[in-house]
Formats: sequence, structure tokens, C-alpha cells
Amino acid sequence: MTNAEFDQQFKRVCNWGRWGPEDQLGTLHYITPAHIRSAAALVRSGRSVSLAIPINKIAGPDNPRPAFHYMVQAYDSTSTFEPNFALDYLACEFHGDCHTHVDALCHIAYKGKLYNGKPTSIVTSKGATSMDITAYAHGIVGRGVLLDIPRLRQVKWLEPGEAVTPEEIEAAEKAQGVRLGEGDIFLFRTGHHRRRLELGPWNNTYEGEGKAGLHSKAMSLLSERKVAAFLPDGDGETVPSNVDGVAYPIHALQICAMGMAASDSLQFEELVKVCEEEHRWEFMVTAAPLRMPGGTGSLWNPIAIF
Amino acid sequence: MTNAEFDQQFKRVCNWGRWGPEDQLGTLHYITPAHIRSAAALVRSGRSVSLAIPINKIAGPDNPRPAFHYMVQAYDSTSTFEPNFALDYLACEFHGDCHTHVDALCHIAYKGKLYNGKPTSIVTSKGATSMDITAYAHGIVGRGVLLDIPRLRQVKWLEPGEAVTPEEIEAAEKAQGVRLGEGDIFLFRTGHHRRRLELGPWNNTYEGEGKAGLHSKAMSLLSERKVAAFLPDGDGETVPSNVDGVAYPIHALQICAMGMAASDSLQFEELVKVCEEEHRWEFMVTAAPLRMPGGTGSLWNPIAIF
Amino acid sequence: MTNAEFDQQFKRVCNWGRWGPEDQLGTLHYITPAHIRSAAALVRSGRSVSLAIPINKIAGPDNPRPAFHYMVQAYDSTSTFEPNFALDYLACEFHGDCHTHVDALCHIAYKGKLYNGKPTSIVTSKGATSMDITAYAHGIVGRGVLLDIPRLRQVKWLEPGEAVTPEEIEAAEKAQGVRLGEGDIFLFRTGHHRRRLELGPWNNTYEGEGKAGLHSKAMSLLSERKVAAFLPDGDGETVPSNVDGVAYPIHALQICAMGMAASDSLQFEELVKVCEEEHRWEFMVTAAPLRMPGGTGSLWNPIAIF
Amino acid sequence: MTNAEFDQQFKRVCNWGRWGPEDQLGTLHYITPAHIRSAAALVRSGRSVSLAIPINKIAGPDNPRPAFHYMVQAYDSTSTFEPNFALDYLACEFHGDCHTHVDALCHIAYKGKLYNGKPTSIVTSKGATSMDITAYAHGIVGRGVLLDIPRLRQVKWLEPGEAVTPEEIEAAEKAQGVRLGEGDIFLFRTGHHRRRLELGPWNNTYEGEGKAGLHSKAMSLLSERKVAAFLPDGDGETVPSNVDGVAYPIHALQICAMGMAASDSLQFEELVKVCEEEHRWEFMVTAAPLRMPGGTGSLWNPIAIF
Repeated sequence: MTNAEFDQQFKRVCNWGRWGPEDQLGTLHYITPAHIRSAAALVRSGRSVSLAIPINKIAGPDNPRPAFHYMVQAYDSTSTFEPNFALDYLACEFHGDCHTHVDALCHIAYKGKLYNGKPTSIVTSKGATSMDITAYAHGIVGRGVLLDIPRLRQVKWLEPGEAVTPEEIEAAEKAQGVRLGEGDIFLFRTGHHRRRLELGPWNNTYEGEGKAGLHSKAMSLLSERKVAAFLPDGDGETVPSNVDGVAYPIHALQICAMGMAASDSLQFEELVKVCEEEHRWEFMVTAAPLRMPGGTGSLWNPIAIF
Repeated sequence: MTNAEFDQQFKRVCNWGRWGPEDQLGTLHYITPAHIRSAAALVRSGRSVSLAIPINKIAGPDNPRPAFHYMVQAYDSTSTFEPNFALDYLACEFHGDCHTHVDALCHIAYKGKLYNGKPTSIVTSKGATSMDITAYAHGIVGRGVLLDIPRLRQVKWLEPGEAVTPEEIEAAEKAQGVRLGEGDIFLFRTGHHRRRLELGPWNNTYEGEGKAGLHSKAMSLLSERKVAAFLPDGDGETVPSNVDGVAYPIHALQICAMGMAASDSLQFEELVKVCEEEHRWEFMVTAAPLRMPGGTGSLWNPIAIF
Repeated sequence: MTNAEFDQQFKRVCNWGRWGPEDQLGTLHYITPAHIRSAAALVRSGRSVSLAIPINKIAGPDNPRPAFHYMVQAYDSTSTFEPNFALDYLACEFHGDCHTHVDALCHIAYKGKLYNGKPTSIVTSKGATSMDITAYAHGIVGRGVLLDIPRLRQVKWLEPGEAVTPEEIEAAEKAQGVRLGEGDIFLFRTGHHRRRLELGPWNNTYEGEGKAGLHSKAMSLLSERKVAAFLPDGDGETVPSNVDGVAYPIHALQICAMGMAASDSLQFEELVKVCEEEHRWEFMVTAAPLRMPGGTGSLWNPIAIF
Repeated sequence: MTNAEFDQQFKRVCNWGRWGPEDQLGTLHYITPAHIRSAAALVRSGRSVSLAIPINKIAGPDNPRPAFHYMVQAYDSTSTFEPNFALDYLACEFHGDCHTHVDALCHIAYKGKLYNGKPTSIVTSKGATSMDITAYAHGIVGRGVLLDIPRLRQVKWLEPGEAVTPEEIEAAEKAQGVRLGEGDIFLFRTGHHRRRLELGPWNNTYEGEGKAGLHSKAMSLLSERKVAAFLPDGDGETVPSNVDGVAYPIHALQICAMGMAASDSLQFEELVKVCEEEHRWEFMVTAAPLRMPGGTGSLWNPIAIF
């Protein structure tokens, strides 16, 4: 895709102004009470499944900013206080491929503009004054649909560099008997985490082996279907990028143009087993970020409920 | 309550061995698929409400360990990379009265023993090897019931030092037309956060003004009713303690004796408005901790769904 | 002092351009090899004394950003590795009254300009690109002179709000038999830390009790004498400020106008004892910041050598 | 060297009991006032040189725990406060090959004992209660002697795995015209940092390429000469270890047996230039750790003064 074609695609899927100039929610507006009721009606077996990767404190080629987790105190002190407590501490620069996290709408700027045309000056060294992660404070609740591309292709995972087209998404829908619709939370599996579990971490940057992800033109399908949120394993991007001069085209389209809720670096390895057992790829999803004023995102742990 | 009476109470509500010697879930076993289906059936209007306090980075008399939140980068750098990103970092020693958090079952020891009689040696300076917060990785899902004691008493909040008896809990149930039952998630409102919003933070330790909370004998009621989780504003404790020689009797009973899921320092100020508007004090609750191996707890953001 | 008088004072002591447009060192240029040799010649008894406060992890009225210190591992793990290690971690937002630290020349802006007239844009959310703390990487070495104002006044400490005039500095010089000269490192004692040790921490902000410090007009004396560095207990400021509309006049004059090396919140309680025993108030001082590229300052531990 | 030979070497260099059962200083006792006066007398040109590596926030094969450095605020906020401030934050797990740091005597245990035979229980999850880094609070001051092994060998650096023998140390002394003596601070250059600057970081663990360092038998020479402190580039260890079953023999001998002050991961690239220009390999050294109660070590920035 040329840079000019990308800019056309940006315009095509753009939601700026759609929900007013001070909008904080973007495509979460697509989720109506009826959608949430329908999502809750999917709860039958009562099983719930985490979609998060365990917090990763081991630096590696894909984890340059490991989390820091320390005990504040164990039970080895000589306190005679009753009861005693064990305490810990967590520090994380969480926008990375090894940390399951949600992005706020302020997280990304394309050509100097944030979602809805907002200026980059709403984010300073003290945090964001608008479109921060507290916009999602009350959580994201809706119908989750998992499309499992390795299952469609009958492979264990997609190889780095492979891009999933809109046609393939439709093929996966057909194969699984589900259809992405308005207000849905789209879980997109490339098998990124499965590959990591089996082969170990790899350098997934441009200089390294890259990543499998979505093709930029597939964002039209997500736009037409009025998908509310996009949650991939990996970060949704094909690396190297298939767009000239744009390093993260999916992020630019999804967050900046569309205002679509974005969460990176999930894992669906536990989920796929449950989906197979339950013979369904739709379920209730709930996810709530830490309520951090000014934050550009948050670590989180979305769950699927069957 | 004397120390000896407390030890009797400890035995009375004790669940050690009930779910096997290697149990990780404690009273979450009370939540059955049927309970989760019933909880989901409570979703009607589709409104969701956060139960978390915004992350607090201001030190004060009740916040000796403020959270540290920094921007990793804003948009002020001269990068010509497209798109650009804003990134942040969060560090928190989260077991404190100003941080809404969940406790793991390894978090507390009474007389040298953890829940289920486990030795304190399962927690070292490197974290917990069992009963850590990953036991709750797949989230806690169930029926939430809010009992609003200030509403019952027709006051704005309970004053520090006041203890809520089992009789008063039953009176609140009656007044609100709900009843705590097996597998329920019990949200207990003393108005702690309302007081803080209106009067400002106070020194709520023994040396200071103290806290309103539950009376230790009320844990029998929670035990008999087979409540699955207890989520107070404040931390559930009455300070000063009404038990001789036991500083945190509610924690000792709840976590160590009962293995009951515990989450501290929530706020129900948004919730009470929605409850009044919806004319009900029961709803679906979902909550999922960060998936931190070895952790003694986690920041989190539980949500109520109506 | 009126705001207009302050601006005159700013011009009077201003060193902008003095050492070229790209200067990184400011008044450290005053320290010549001869000064360093003379300072080293003061080493006779071989005693050395720390001028730093122990790192403070207790939040309080004067410590809103406590340091976070955790063990990474103690010896309680079951490793059979030989030898074993104990490891720890330190995190600190160090520009505060309870953390002995050095300020970089980029640390302060007055009317939108940094030292030497540099624009504030040299500091972004990613750090400083010039005049950062690495300018002092090779350390500050020279003659230290302690002027002990409580000793002069025959009190234990100065009370908050008291300002020390240039006349009083000269009186202290006379009483102690020393004279601040070119290239000196000026240690200025108000007894701030002694007061804290004896009475406990206090709210030393404008809203609280304030601080004892230097009078703004005393900066003329430091300018004329060509003092290289100013190291007070407290932070040098009198609070409330004695200048209309300028909250931190000493910092503005010292760092922004003069480019003088600044280190805050030292303690001289061990030093004064040694000075009395050695019957002298001059000694060699060495101090070196952590070598943090882009940093606006650093925790450090200056030492006096007798 | 066999494990049994190592244990003999351990006994041979052991200083347990030498300075009493509660000793905190170990071989720093060797530094007398006369040594410090002599060291100060070496100050002639007044040049000072940092021996620290810039703080490293880039994860890599030899930096699994990068430092975290963030701005707390830059000048992009809309504050009208005068003056304005730029502030930052530093967090570091500093015991690593990319962070110049000092080790406390509590940092290492061999066969369950710390230096002076102290039990490992003096270090808990809350820090060390004895032999912590505050023992060095008043700094280490003395004569520094640099022995430059690559200079002796006429190579740019030693290759990983190479061990320097006592004979080679004596040859370097002879070639440079200096002799390590009682109370000296021994700077030992293998060219580790030079190699890193030119070839980039490498995996220097056992599983990787390893490190150049000192041969274990060379610790006898340091013991006989009564060296006070050992400061290598790298961490002093030859990797893989030349001792059966002991992973860090130099650390075990130096810290645990001898109580010798230890600082890891310095760089001498600036120093060697100054030494050549000044035609001498001896100079004054001063170094002071952050004054962290309970700490097992500290980031620091030692300086050489000529």
C-alpha cells in the first residue's frame, strides 16, 4: 500500500466528529444496552478465561522493558504483630509486546493529530488531559468473537511478516459459524503467543524477524461492521509494515482514525481450548483498566465468560 | 472480644482442609455455574460502574505509599516517525488504603500459618510459590450485593471507630430487599470514601482517628451464608480493633481462616447512584487481577454490570 | 523585595554568556587546578564525613515522594547456587526536601528561560538534551567552607521563615575565621536537619510553617565572591518567600541567573562535630552525581575530607 | 582450581575475626590517615575523571535489568508558577554488569555464611540489619592504582574467558612503575567496557561468551598486599569460572572471605587517556554510595583526582 493509498484508507475509516468534538469513547458508542444484554445471555456454562499474558519480568528480544516485581516484605521479619502480612510492589512500562495492555485514545498521533483531530498538546509530561484511559474506567463489556486464523489455515501459528486480508477474516467467520457485527469485541488470533511459547521470544522489530498481523485494508471491514474493540495476540501489526512510510498502520487507523478501543498483546491459548470444548467462538467479554488519571493506557486482564 | 474469644471465632469460621490440602481458591468454590448464569441474568440495562478509586499519587495521612505515574514520552520530541506514541509508566506498592486492590490468599498469616494451614515459607523475598494472586487469574464473576449501612442509618457515612454488627447487616438486607447468599460477592459500604471526598484524608491508624468497619462477630454470618468474596470501602476493619491483641481481625478471619476472596479500599459513590436509579442492590460483578506470578495481590478495577 | 527589585537582582548576578553560548558548567569554571590543589592540601587528619541525609522512604509532611527501596532477593530462597547473593532496588523521585540531591542547570526556568538564556525546549518528556546532570559527571572537587548560622546566633537552629542576610554571612565568617572565596563550595547551615531530628518533620510549604534560608540579596555576596557551589541544609530558600511573585528566588538566582552548582537538603550534623574537633571550617569536598544522561539532577552523597 | 583448593584459598585469605566480631568495614581498615594524606598529595593537576558507566536504560544481552528514568515534569505544562522546574525519577535494580555499583559486605554468602561468619538471617525481605551499604556512608578515600592489562599485553582488550594471573599483575606493576600496597584502591582494567563500546554488548554469562577477569589465585596477592578495595571493569570474574562448583569465586573470596570493598562494572576509558597524559597510574580516589539503610549496595560514581 502506498502512502497516498494509506491516507485514503485513513479518510475512509475516519470517525472524527462522528460523536461530537469532545468525544472520549470512540467506537465504544457502538455497544448498546441491547448488545450488553445479548452478551450476558451468552453466559451459560459459567466458565471464565483470562486473555492476559502473565506479567513478564524477563528482558528479552521482544521485552526491552521488563516489569519490576518485588516483595515489600515476606514473613521473615521478626515482627510479633498479629496478623502478619506479605506485601509486594509492581512497576511497569506497559506499552510493550510482552505486557497485555489497553491503549487510550490519546496514545497515538498521525501527522500531528490525535483521534477526533485533537492536538498532541493534550498530552504533556504530566499526562493526558483528555482521551486518557479513565475514559474506559467503567470497563468494556460486550460480545467477544474470536477469529482463529491458524485454525482456518490449519497451522500452529502465522509466521512473522504474514498479513491477514479481509477475505481471510470472512473465511474464518464462515468456518467458525460466527459473524463480526456492530458493537462486537473482536479477538484476533495469529498464534503469536503460541509461537513464543514453543520457539521462545524473537526479535519482532523491523530489524529482526517481524510479526504477523492484519492487513491495513482489513480495517475497512472492521469499520463497516462497526466493531467496537480490536484485541489481537501480537499487536495487530504486520511487521515489516505493508504501508510505505507508516510503521504502525493498524494502530494509526484503529486508534487515530477510527477511535476504536485497542488492546495489545493478549494470549488466547487458554481461550481456544475452551472455545473448542464449548463449540462456540462467541462469549461475554469484560475488561477494565486501572483507573489512572492522565494515563495513556493500562495493564489489564480481560476475561471471556462462557 | 477477648483474644481467646477471637481464637474460638477463628475456629468457628475456619475452612482449612475443606477443599483439599492444595486449595488455591477458598470460598470462590462457592460460586457455581448456576450462580454465574444467575448473575449474568441480572444484566438488563447494560450500565457498568467502576468500583475502584482513581489511582492516588498524592501522599497523605492515609496514603504513605503513593503511586508513581510518569510519562515515558509525550509528543514533544522531534521524532519524524509516523505515527507517534505517548507512553507512560506506573509503579505502585498497592496494599494500602488509597489503592483499590485484591489480596491473594498468601497475603496474611495468623500465628505463623497461612490459609489452609500453609507455612509462611511459601512466601520468600522472591514472591509466593503458592496461593498467589494468579489463583484468581481467570477473574471473579458472580452476583454482587451492595449493603449500604449509611443508607440504613440515614447518615452520610459511619464515623471512624464504629463497628457494624451482624444484626445491622440483616437490617440492611431487609431495608434494601436483598439477601446475601451462597457464592455472593458482598459489597459493604460504610461511606469511608464519601467521608474522604468531603472532609479530606485523615490518619486512620490506631494512633489517629481510626476506621469504621465490620464487627468480628459478623464474620460468622458471612461464613454461614457462604459468601464468596468481601469487598468493603475502607478495608473492612474497625480501627481501633475490637479484639484484644489482634490488629486486623477481619483480615485474619476472612483471608487466613476462611480463605475468602478479599479486596480492599473500593468506592461505591458512583454505584449507589446507579443502584438508586435502578431500584436494586444486586447486579453482576466481574473483576480480574493483573496476572502476576508470585504476587500477594494486585491493583484492580472491579465493575458492576446492571 | 518587590518583583521589580528581584529582576534587578537577577540581572546583577547574571552570568549568561560569560562562558560562551554552549556552556555546561557555570560557576564550576571558578574552580581552577590551583583551587583543587589547595583543597587537597587541607587533607590532614584523613577523616571523611558524609553530608547526605539517609535515604528516606517514609512519607510525611515534608516528604510527599518517599523513596522506594526493596529487596530483589534475600537469602531465603532454596537456591543451591554458590555463592548466594542478596540484591536490592531503589526508586526515587529525588527533587524533594528529604532527599539529598544535586540540581542540573536545566532544572529551573525563570520567565521561560533556562541558564544562559537557553529555551525550555531543551527539556522534553524524554529528558534534557543539554545542561543535564552529566555536565557534572567528573565530580565537583574543591574547598568546602561551612558557615554555621545557628552557631553564630547561639541557637540550635533557625526557625522557619527566618532569612539570613549578607551581613550575617560576613559575621559568621568572622566568628569562624574563614572567608568564602573564588571557587569555594559553600556549605550553609541553618540547622534545618537538626530541627527535624529533634522536633520531627513539619509542613515546610507556604501553606505550612515554612523554612529558614538565605535572603535573596545575599546572592550578590555569593556572586561577588565567585562562589562555585552552594550546598544548604534545607533548600536554601526562605519560605514564605521574601520576593513578591517569586516562589523560589534563591533557586532562580542561583541556577538560572548565575549557573551556580546547587545541591539541596544536605545535613551537617556529623560535620559540625568534626569541625569543632578539628577546629576548622574548611576542608576538601568531593561529590559526584550518578551519571544519568538527560537527568535534571541526581541523588548523591557529597563528602568532606579533613 | 578444584573445589577443595578453592576452600583452602578461602581460608588463606580469610579475614574473619580480624577486626572484631561486629566489624562493618573489612579491608577499609587498611586505609590509615597517612594513606589518605598521601593520596591527597597526589593531587597536582586538579583533573578529575569519572569511573562510572553512564546509566544504562537499554535492555540487552548483558543488561537484563535496565534502569528506568522518567521525567516527572518538563516545561510543557501550562503552570504560571515562577520559577518553573523540570524534575525526573530514577529506578534501578543496580547489581548488574551494566550499572557501576558498589557491593555491601552483606551482598554475598558462601556456604551459608556472610563475611565475618555472620548468618544470612541478617538480610531479610526488609533489607540488611548489619554490614549494609551505610557502613561506607562516609565514602572511600585513598590512593587509586590502575593496572592496565591490555596495555601490558598490547591488545585492545582481553577476550572473554581469559584469566589474569598474579604474575601478570606483577608484570603490569613493573611495566607501569607502580606497586599495589597497603590501603590501596586497586583499579583493574581488562578492557571489558572498551570491547563493549566497539563490538556492542554480548551475552557474558556461562551460557554465552563469558568474561575476562582475575584468576582466583590472584586474590592471595591482593591479600598479602593488604589492598583495601578492588574495582574492576567487568565484575572481576572470569567466566566460565575456573573453580569447580563456584560460580563467582572472586566475589566469594573478596567480599565473603576478605571483607574487601567491592565495586563492579566500572569503566576506565576516560581514565586511561588521562593516565597517559599525566604519565602516572596513581591518583586520589573518592567514592561515596547513596546512604541507603539496609541496602546491599548502591549505584555510585567514583572519581579519580590527579
